[in-house]
Amino acid sequence: MLDPERILRLEDDAVVFLDQRKLPQATEEVRCSTAADVADAIRTMVVRGAPAIGIAAAYGYALAAARGEDLATADAVLRSSRPTAVNLAWALDRMHADPSAEHARRLHAEEVDRCRHMSAHAAALFAPRTRALTHCNAGALAMGGYGSAVGALVTAWEQGLLAHVWVDETRPLLQGARLTAWELEDASIPHAVIADSAAASLMAAGEVDCIVTGADRIAANGDTANKIGTYSLAVLARHHDIPLYVVAPTSTVDLATPDGAAIPIEERDASEVTTRFAARNPAFDVTPASLIAAIVTEDGVHRAPYTASLAGAGVLA
Amino acid sequence: MLDPERILRLEDDAVVFLDQRKLPQATEEVRCSTAADVADAIRTMVVRGAPAIGIAAAYGYALAAARGEDLATADAVLRSSRPTAVNLAWALDRMHADPSAEHARRLHAEEVDRCRHMSAHAAALFAPRTRALTHCNAGALAMGGYGSAVGALVTAWEQGLLAHVWVDETRPLLQGARLTAWELEDASIPHAVIADSAAASLMAAGEVDCIVTGADRIAANGDTANKIGTYSLAVLARHHDIPLYVVAPTSTVDLATPDGAAIPIEERDASEVTTRFAARNPAFDVTPASLIAAIVTEDGVHRAPYTASLAGAGVLA
Repeated sequence: MLDPERILRLEDDAVVFLDQRKLPQATEEVRCSTAADVADAIRTMVVRGAPAIGIAAAYGYALAAARGEDLATADAVLRSSRPTAVNLAWALDRMHADPSAEHARRLHAEEVDRCRHMSAHAAALFAPRTRALTHCNAGALAMGGYGSAVGALVTAWEQGLLAHVWVDETRPLLQGARLTAWELEDASIPHAVIADSAAASLMAAGEVDCIVTGADRIAANGDTANKIGTYSLAVLARHHDIPLYVVAPTSTVDLATPDGAAIPIEERDASEVTTRFAARNPAFDVTPASLIAAIVTEDGVHRAPYTASLAGAGVLA
Repeated sequence: MLDPERILRLEDDAVVFLDQRKLPQATEEVRCSTAADVADAIRTMVVRGAPAIGIAAAYGYALAAARGEDLATADAVLRSSRPTAVNLAWALDRMHADPSAEHARRLHAEEVDRCRHMSAHAAALFAPRTRALTHCNAGALAMGGYGSAVGALVTAWEQGLLAHVWVDETRPLLQGARLTAWELEDASIPHAVIADSAAASLMAAGEVDCIVTGADRIAANGDTANKIGTYSLAVLARHHDIPLYVVAPTSTVDLATPDGAAIPIEERDASEVTTRFAARNPAFDVTPASLIAAIVTEDGVHRAPYTASLAGAGVLA
């Protein structure tokens, strides 16, 4: 497995990231010397994935504190670096009480530890010889280590429950083809990349047993914002009677957001889709709770009605 | 509108194609001097789109006849150049009776004429201010002139019925982003390219009134093979109560194929999806007739039950 410190780490004078934009062709590091640099790295997707950007913000805040930067300014620039994930706010709120490097590193370690727990819970949902489909990258790179949806696949593979993984390439930025395939190859798990629009045919052919994805924000009622295309998969899965499992840490659950309609959806630059023509480029979509078979966190497996289940899990305590 | 002769034409010693692989960055021509060259152009997608490859095969056969090539060999190499579209067989069967250049050119002109008819029939299904979504390129480039699904959009636009077009970029080869957007821009029709996986969110947001696509082969019962991703759109459209219209010439209808299960689906090279990892790359999928609101041909609008409707249209007569 990918070493968490290789994905992102706090050094004495910088936060250092593995540049996820360049994977898998190149493994280069980006060094950020100020909180503003860290915010830029988040915005430009040097680091991406809701939990990983939360950890990045915590490291950026600790760096600002160590450098004597104005902490209110550091908080504001980091908090606003991307709009959809709730983990930025979650991590920064935690850091206010103790902006030390040690605290930020503990937060990182705890997120990775949560991944192992949620992955075990999710793998228990897998039948033997499961052929799973996943979208985007909810792997070690997205979580700062181990992974949520990909973590579940790794755990299921180690338990002998997984036969094959279909990897949505995940347009426009190809996180599936670039990052998830790279992680699965590293773990020696059989997989094949597909065009996002080919998922439906595989479902119709009976070649998909379950779908596992991560989440960028989970509302109190279970509505889940995740990479654009997740909602599409959820509708297709329902039509083909295939369960969709969302695997995410409780840091992703936002009880203050009542439902999906209240989640801000980032629109990224049209040039990510095409450089020549007019384009729309929503980066996320919202999957209604009614289309989600289970939401798996480090606390366990949540089932509908989610409002009661998620609130009872003590998330955002 | 794009001149049919600019898309493909028969000269004295060659079939000349606008190289659709290079659009829109470059407008280059490819000259094919033998039937085998024409088959290569079809296989490598210099020319693509079911009706256009039928016309290409007719031109290739006429060229072989003019050059004194063995016609059985020319037929075999052209017929096998791609597996899914039925138009190759349809055009070659027609050319057997009269392999002259004049006959091939008449077949081309008739296909374009059919496009104008089916486009008028399809546009009549549009309500005022329609926001349509289309997939791949069922335009002039695919049909040898005017277009089927894109032809319907052009006709609806001229009649003041069309407000906006969402263009699926259409991975892996991006025919939507490269070709359909180019044709819509040429026709000054408002449009935006989207990632294929973003279509579902637009439907959920109420921003899509209908979906129009072409077809590579329509079985006797109405099951329709088209670019991979069409089936996905059909399921999503049904979930959101949006009509899906298939617009295609009767040369695409194959009454000898009873249903979608009997249509061969081309698997193209995995390198189209990714050059680094294992991949699956089906080029087409089959949309069950039950998910299609109407099949529009030059004869008019066919509704379920399609078995009676399509057989009664005298297709493949």
